Amino acid sequence: MEKAVLITIGDEILSGNTVDTNSNFIATELKNIGVQVSQIFTISDEIETIKNTLKEAFKIGDLIITTGGLGPTRDDKTKKALAEFFNDEIALDEVTFEHLRTYMEKRGRLEILERNREQAFVPTKSTVFQNNFGTAPCMMMEQDGKLCFSLPGVPYEVKPLIKDQIVPYLKEKYSLNYITTRIISVVGIPESILADIVEDWELALPENLALSYLPIGTRVKLRLTATGENELYLQQQLEEEIQKLLPLIRDNVIATTEDKIEKILGELLIERKLTISTAESCTGGELAKMITSNSGSSKYFLGGIIPYATEKKIEILKVKKETVDEFTVVSEQVAQEMAKGCQNLFDTNISLSTTGVAGPGKGEDGKDIGTVFYSIRVNDKEHSSKLYMPHLERLDFMNFVSQKILQDLVGILINE
Amino acid sequence: MEKAVLITIGDEILSGNTVDTNSNFIATELKNIGVQVSQIFTISDEIETIKNTLKEAFKIGDLIITTGGLGPTRDDKTKKALAEFFNDEIALDEVTFEHLRTYMEKRGRLEILERNREQAFVPTKSTVFQNNFGTAPCMMMEQDGKLCFSLPGVPYEVKPLIKDQIVPYLKEKYSLNYITTRIISVVGIPESILADIVEDWELALPENLALSYLPIGTRVKLRLTATGENELYLQQQLEEEIQKLLPLIRDNVIATTEDKIEKILGELLIERKLTISTAESCTGGELAKMITSNSGSSKYFLGGIIPYATEKKIEILKVKKETVDEFTVVSEQVAQEMAKGCQNLFDTNISLSTTGVAGPGKGEDGKDIGTVFYSIRVNDKEHSSKLYMPHLERLDFMNFVSQKILQDLVGILINE
Repeated sequence: MEKAVLITIGDEILSGNTVDTNSNFIATELKNIGVQVSQIFTISDEIETIKNTLKEAFKIGDLIITTGGLGPTRDDKTKKALAEFFNDEIALDEVTFEHLRTYMEKRGRLEILERNREQAFVPTKSTVFQNNFGTAPCMMMEQDGKLCFSLPGVPYEVKPLIKDQIVPYLKEKYSLNYITTRIISVVGIPESILADIVEDWELALPENLALSYLPIGTRVKLRLTATGENELYLQQQLEEEIQKLLPLIRDNVIATTEDKIEKILGELLIERKLTISTAESCTGGELAKMITSNSGSSKYFLGGIIPYATEKKIEILKVKKETVDEFTVVSEQVAQEMAKGCQNLFDTNISLSTTGVAGPGKGEDGKDIGTVFYSIRVNDKEHSSKLYMPHLERLDFMNFVSQKILQDLVGILINE
Repeated sequence: MEKAVLITIGDEILSGNTVDTNSNFIATELKNIGVQVSQIFTISDEIETIKNTLKEAFKIGDLIITTGGLGPTRDDKTKKALAEFFNDEIALDEVTFEHLRTYMEKRGRLEILERNREQAFVPTKSTVFQNNFGTAPCMMMEQDGKLCFSLPGVPYEVKPLIKDQIVPYLKEKYSLNYITTRIISVVGIPESILADIVEDWELALPENLALSYLPIGTRVKLRLTATGENELYLQQQLEEEIQKLLPLIRDNVIATTEDKIEKILGELLIERKLTISTAESCTGGELAKMITSNSGSSKYFLGGIIPYATEKKIEILKVKKETVDEFTVVSEQVAQEMAKGCQNLFDTNISLSTTGVAGPGKGEDGKDIGTVFYSIRVNDKEHSSKLYMPHLERLDFMNFVSQKILQDLVGILINE
């Protein structure tokens, strides 16, 4: 059990209506038990296509996981394709039907049991993993010692099936090779210069270690992966190599354990017993959301405000009207006064502020789309910057700016 | 030119480190010019795999678009694979090198031009589309009348290349079949009952129309797609079919033109000249972000507050301490007082509030993880609800709750 292949079934992904987040989740969960996804097929809901792809997938991997195409509606054909591919019949499974009845009963929806009865039909050779958050069961088929799991496509249903049922099942059934990963976050250095600096170190890496570059915003994440039988040994190996790497890029490394910037920041704030608050205009809540998406953030995040309208910046954050009149609302000066007002309002050590034009419409003061001023206030020290990102879509802009601010703050705290 | 195949190259997606958002963007853009993505391959950065997948892709589609694997670092092998697949050589392209020099010059990074010089090497038979937001050019190869574009993997670079260069190029080169889509948003009815109700209508649809079900949170989106030569005729066809559908599910339809809930809401608010504000605890800014992600939201969104710490709910929103003491901070009563305080603070017609436990840690008052109370205040009318979503991960929880609140609000405004 080493290589997995994922098959995502559904026209809603091919048409661009839905982003496929299941594959990402499944790949991460499998990686943790040492199973590498070697390919993902995203295909439409057609019986022949599904069968052909299953054939390809069985050539490449030992473990096949399909998602999607198991709902009660007309456009779902996966189950039929499965039965045909495995030369099997579909029949009512009593245990699954009972599970379904209980599920519907709990939700007071027994009147539609007949319509959903079809959901309890599964290939006769399949092993069923019951779905506790939806009506489509997960089915496992076995062929030549390889496994094929078929799951519904709804992420809320996929996550518990994978995490609570399939991963534990695989863990128990196979004794797997471990894959261990460390991420080193590097800032303030372009990817190509970084590559030059670490080249000799990279070439000297042991054979079971591999390096990848993952640029995210203005940060580069170096991902170092080790594969082998002994987890503890792999962790030691990674630590040793990171210790060799650090002297080469020490000034640019902001983290070697955590991956996400909001986690890196969270650890720093807890360690130093600092509190934080946000005052956002053009990021519209994204910055606060990013901070609070870290579990445990209530220990340091006291609050945020989104004074979208200019008069709210003046009323609530005490930005001076003269400052707005003189410099416009999208200006370094207003960003600074917002941060100061925010620090007072929430009584925190640190405050962050943004004011800018996310576009696509022009800002009220005529500043260019993609312009943002932000201010980071740590106690009574101010750090203000400007970004100009005209090529970003609205949501990407909000996300990029928020990433950058948290990254800058981590840099400031580390170098203080 | 009808069928496209996307190839996403990069271990960072297979390993679960990065969610592939490029495919979604490209699929949507292609759909708008009537090109359907029929398959997506996500593969690793290995020359043989890339070549084999290109072979498969040319069997299925007329247009191949690859993303990823064109950076200046060691793990990028796409260009070599391209040259081998098309029996071509790689050579320095002077125009591309000049473009690169200008690009680096603008950014004050001329010292690393040598390292990036490799980026200006392209297959000799390729047509280059210059990348204005990065160093890796986009290359187009032609074979048997089919096209293959190779793009870098960074979303900021992919978007303008697709939108400003490739889509206009394809539009001009081919006269394409149109694909037109309408989304009907349905709430308050499970997918399977909905399927029963619309069955006869669906079976009677003209052959060039297709229906899909896209569940999102507690909403079901019906996507009706029409394919044909005359765009205006297709739009008429869709409108006619929707008019036949509406009487069947009228009470449950919240929109037939816009797709995203924040857009549906935005149109309603502008039409009725209503303003809105938010007070969020457990959604941490996601609700405000969702509202402000709609361009033009500054017309109706006056501001938001995230009083994360309980004392900030009391200080800023004037939630009564006694209410917190009596009912705990995660309660309907606190949600209502938050909404009221928020309406006063921002002086808006509508205010929305959330208080709950996103998990995974227990809330300070011992309420179960996944519990949220929210309140929707429209003028002086209160609408409060509770949700219990223990199976959702933190970010999914924040998103689900925000979606649900906006959806409820739209329902309230429509049925008022």
